[in-house]
Amino acid sequence: MRGAESVAKGLGYRILVHYFYADQPWDEQIKRILSDACGVILLGTDITEPQRDAFFEFYHLGNVPLVIIDNFLFSAYVDCVGNDNTYGVKAAISYLIKCGHRSIGYLRSKQRIVNFDDRELGIKLSMEEHSSLGLAPLQVLDVDISPDKAREDIFAWLAAGNVPAGAYFCENDVLAAAFIRALKEKGFRVPEDVSVMGFDDVQICEMIEPPITTMHAFKERLGKIAVELLNTRIDAGDTLLTSRESGLMKVALSLQLKERMSVRCID
Amino acid sequence: MRGAESVAKGLGYRILVHYFYADQPWDEQIKRILSDACGVILLGTDITEPQRDAFFEFYHLGNVPLVIIDNFLFSAYVDCVGNDNTYGVKAAISYLIKCGHRSIGYLRSKQRIVNFDDRELGIKLSMEEHSSLGLAPLQVLDVDISPDKAREDIFAWLAAGNVPAGAYFCENDVLAAAFIRALKEKGFRVPEDVSVMGFDDVQICEMIEPPITTMHAFKERLGKIAVELLNTRIDAGDTLLTSRESGLMKVALSLQLKERMSVRCID
Repeated sequence: MRGAESVAKGLGYRILVHYFYADQPWDEQIKRILSDACGVILLGTDITEPQRDAFFEFYHLGNVPLVIIDNFLFSAYVDCVGNDNTYGVKAAISYLIKCGHRSIGYLRSKQRIVNFDDRELGIKLSMEEHSSLGLAPLQVLDVDISPDKAREDIFAWLAAGNVPAGAYFCENDVLAAAFIRALKEKGFRVPEDVSVMGFDDVQICEMIEPPITTMHAFKERLGKIAVELLNTRIDAGDTLLTSRESGLMKVALSLQLKERMSVRCID
Repeated sequence: MRGAESVAKGLGYRILVHYFYADQPWDEQIKRILSDACGVILLGTDITEPQRDAFFEFYHLGNVPLVIIDNFLFSAYVDCVGNDNTYGVKAAISYLIKCGHRSIGYLRSKQRIVNFDDRELGIKLSMEEHSSLGLAPLQVLDVDISPDKAREDIFAWLAAGNVPAGAYFCENDVLAAAFIRALKEKGFRVPEDVSVMGFDDVQICEMIEPPITTMHAFKERLGKIAVELLNTRIDAGDTLLTSRESGLMKVALSLQLKERMSVRCID
């Protein structure tokens, strides 16, 4: 939001923030938004396929361009700006391997969004890419997305006699934090016994002990790029339809390794 | 090139075209380019991993921003603009399936470039996505990238008693054209007996009989976006290093289905 706002102001736009409510009809909510706007940016993080289709059923009511942030499920229909999840995870796994880890785990959210699927693809591709190193089979631990329920899932998994892998990629930082806490409560040391890596680089990473090594996402830049892209469409007089005819843009921003203390490098 | 040139002129740049020669030292060639330029666009279509690494070994000699066109192998190091190959192939396979095909083939180039690997990933993901439809196992036919040698490979494959699948995705239009010609020479009708689909939408698609159904790539737009991206970096005073720190951009342009006559839709 901050990134979008600063660029939008510079370009002479005013930003209106609308929320979608699940219990109100889509068509009315979309009509209300379109009556005000010359262009729309939709934060798509946790939008699912049926929701996307319902959205597009009504979006054509207006004729203003649209850019989606943080969900590539839309990329066949509209310009999208998001994180390069697959590449980011590949970089994370390469880092764990460079640190000497050969037994890798994946703390996976039971609730799936497109970004998570893209991250899972990154894991798969990484394991294939490094298969010549004789890695242990990927250990997958499915947990609830909410930290409290994730903690219960982790405890149940440990109670069933499972032994953690040497280094974990966690689907996001919040799960990484929940995992670190649960491991410590059960007597494991992080990173001496188990290394833990997150994804996103949210504030919590620096607040817990040990601080979390993660892939930093350039969130502000995402907002800026979305506004610039929308501005180009508005200037060109593009609608959703003409945007498709001239080629839709899928902009994936790279992520950057942020080394902190939660991953141990084996000498 | 045409797309890049028109935008560059508008922004007040002059474009210099350099070629790389395999038999001359990289460092001298790169130095020569960098001595002239305030920014570099590199057409990366068939650059391999070792070539990329050799290029970066010397590129830091200059301190001007860089954008790569048509090769995402670079996306961890530098801004990239290319076609969304994986999505494009998924759209192609979805189209074949929508046309009623359940036996799908893949005419794959023996010579691999990054774009081809991305297309192969698209095939894999598509086959998984539609696995509930009871598709026949993917039939892969590996052929040389040059049309004449591809023709020999296809003949040898048919002579070995292989029977073509109902519908093929070909790695690019040139291979699709070679395949159509070879099939016709051997008495197959296209699309009545075998449907053939290409990728790129080069001129040949409209020149052969039947005209080739393909995924249209927005080549001019690719050049325009590359110049705009480079211009943003130059304006911001970015170097290769500072570009990395602020988040690299990987811009993938969608492709558009171009229906012609080489795919049969089964009623």
